[in-house]
Amino acid sequence: MTNQEYLDFAKSVAFYAGKTMLEHYQSHLDFHFKEDKTVVTRVDKEINKYLIERVKERYKHHGVNGEEETYNPDSEYTWVCDPLDGTGMYTNHIPVFVFSLALVYCGEPIVGVVYNPVEDKLYSAIQNEGAYCNGEKIHVNQKRLGDLGYRTNVEIFHNTLIDEMLLIKELKECSKISSIGSVARSSMAIATGDFSCDIFPGSKHGNCDIAASSLIVKEAGGRVTNLYGEEQLYDKAIKGAIITNGISHSQVLDIVKKYTL
Amino acid sequence: MTNQEYLDFAKSVAFYAGKTMLEHYQSHLDFHFKEDKTVVTRVDKEINKYLIERVKERYKHHGVNGEEETYNPDSEYTWVCDPLDGTGMYTNHIPVFVFSLALVYCGEPIVGVVYNPVEDKLYSAIQNEGAYCNGEKIHVNQKRLGDLGYRTNVEIFHNTLIDEMLLIKELKECSKISSIGSVARSSMAIATGDFSCDIFPGSKHGNCDIAASSLIVKEAGGRVTNLYGEEQLYDKAIKGAIITNGISHSQVLDIVKKYTL
Repeated sequence: MTNQEYLDFAKSVAFYAGKTMLEHYQSHLDFHFKEDKTVVTRVDKEINKYLIERVKERYKHHGVNGEEETYNPDSEYTWVCDPLDGTGMYTNHIPVFVFSLALVYCGEPIVGVVYNPVEDKLYSAIQNEGAYCNGEKIHVNQKRLGDLGYRTNVEIFHNTLIDEMLLIKELKECSKISSIGSVARSSMAIATGDFSCDIFPGSKHGNCDIAASSLIVKEAGGRVTNLYGEEQLYDKAIKGAIITNGISHSQVLDIVKKYTL
Repeated sequence: MTNQEYLDFAKSVAFYAGKTMLEHYQSHLDFHFKEDKTVVTRVDKEINKYLIERVKERYKHHGVNGEEETYNPDSEYTWVCDPLDGTGMYTNHIPVFVFSLALVYCGEPIVGVVYNPVEDKLYSAIQNEGAYCNGEKIHVNQKRLGDLGYRTNVEIFHNTLIDEMLLIKELKECSKISSIGSVARSSMAIATGDFSCDIFPGSKHGNCDIAASSLIVKEAGGRVTNLYGEEQLYDKAIKGAIITNGISHSQVLDIVKKYTL
């Protein structure tokens, strides 16, 4: 199998996922709240299930690490998936949600796709081969923290890794701040040079949120570490993420370090 | 003139605005930063200018209070407009931005429209006649602060009215938090029963951001006050805004009051 074949497979799952999301987007959704009070819909579960079926039939020795369901978890090759990143926005009819899928080999993403069905934008990357949106090469911007238009996205929720309120208080002196509800969508804005930074405080299945984005942003020229500035593996729990355009990574890390717990 | 005629006029301007926004949305935008470091594009200015021309030709004794340009400011009837609410998201290619226009009589909005061109959704209200989205009646939800799925949007920027970091720190214990980058879009999510609350810390032209939304949310069953719990006029500067589903307004106000400066 080549990485290109893996990418084609990932894209085919992404388009199915996007179609499923849009079919149910305007309806009164069937959803409930998980133990951590985050929301899950039938759509998240259906897409996760579909991925497992497709992997079983095509790559039966691979595993799936999905935000809603897992299969064959100890495989060297693992498809790490957030079937619907931004479920809170999705259920509130705000068009900021995406499908995210990476093929991870021994913890390292080698193929990644993020699909935004509302705007029909497919972001993709193969390790060492650059990042693309709908076939066009994409690049991060060259803004430094403090430059006009530098934007940082921070998702605000319960976490035990960082004091995000103090972090935002300092960051808003040198950056625009938003919290758009989907770290994968925000990461794609970094990969295309729109946003400059995303700080992801971490959650139970954080690796599912970040795996594909980390590859796409790196291939677009950016940098991704955990909240402590270290590289990390994406087939297991992660310690949050700092996702930047690269040039500003150390500036951001210096601030984040003050507020990690 | 009847309010229905005013509404038809507002809608015709909204559709022009939406068309103009979409024409330039994917391009490399011509934008610059204002003194307060917020961004403005050629699109904001063009729409504002178009509104003034249309008002001059149709209602020459009326005024226009636009975020980018003003005309005949001391009129009893004033068209209060944010030509592009969510410019920061617009320039970053995140589909969360709207056009907002209210006809305000002696400070009180009597007709309002908000138009979201990406999803072709026109939200509208006439005083005492209910609120609509694309012709369908809309209603706020009945969630109380602390209920699962209660969502508060807070725009994070420099302001001198409230300590928004401490506010968010307390609110996130009993509400989902986001900061999607457009208070008018977020207000429409309240009017349709998706979000439950928006706290708008205030900015120089804050009345332009809130005028139409305040009428639409009230007509959908919600409540809108300034940050101190008072009614306010929308043809001049405002003291921020608390925009809720109504049922939770006093709960939110009790928390906001602790953090106003």
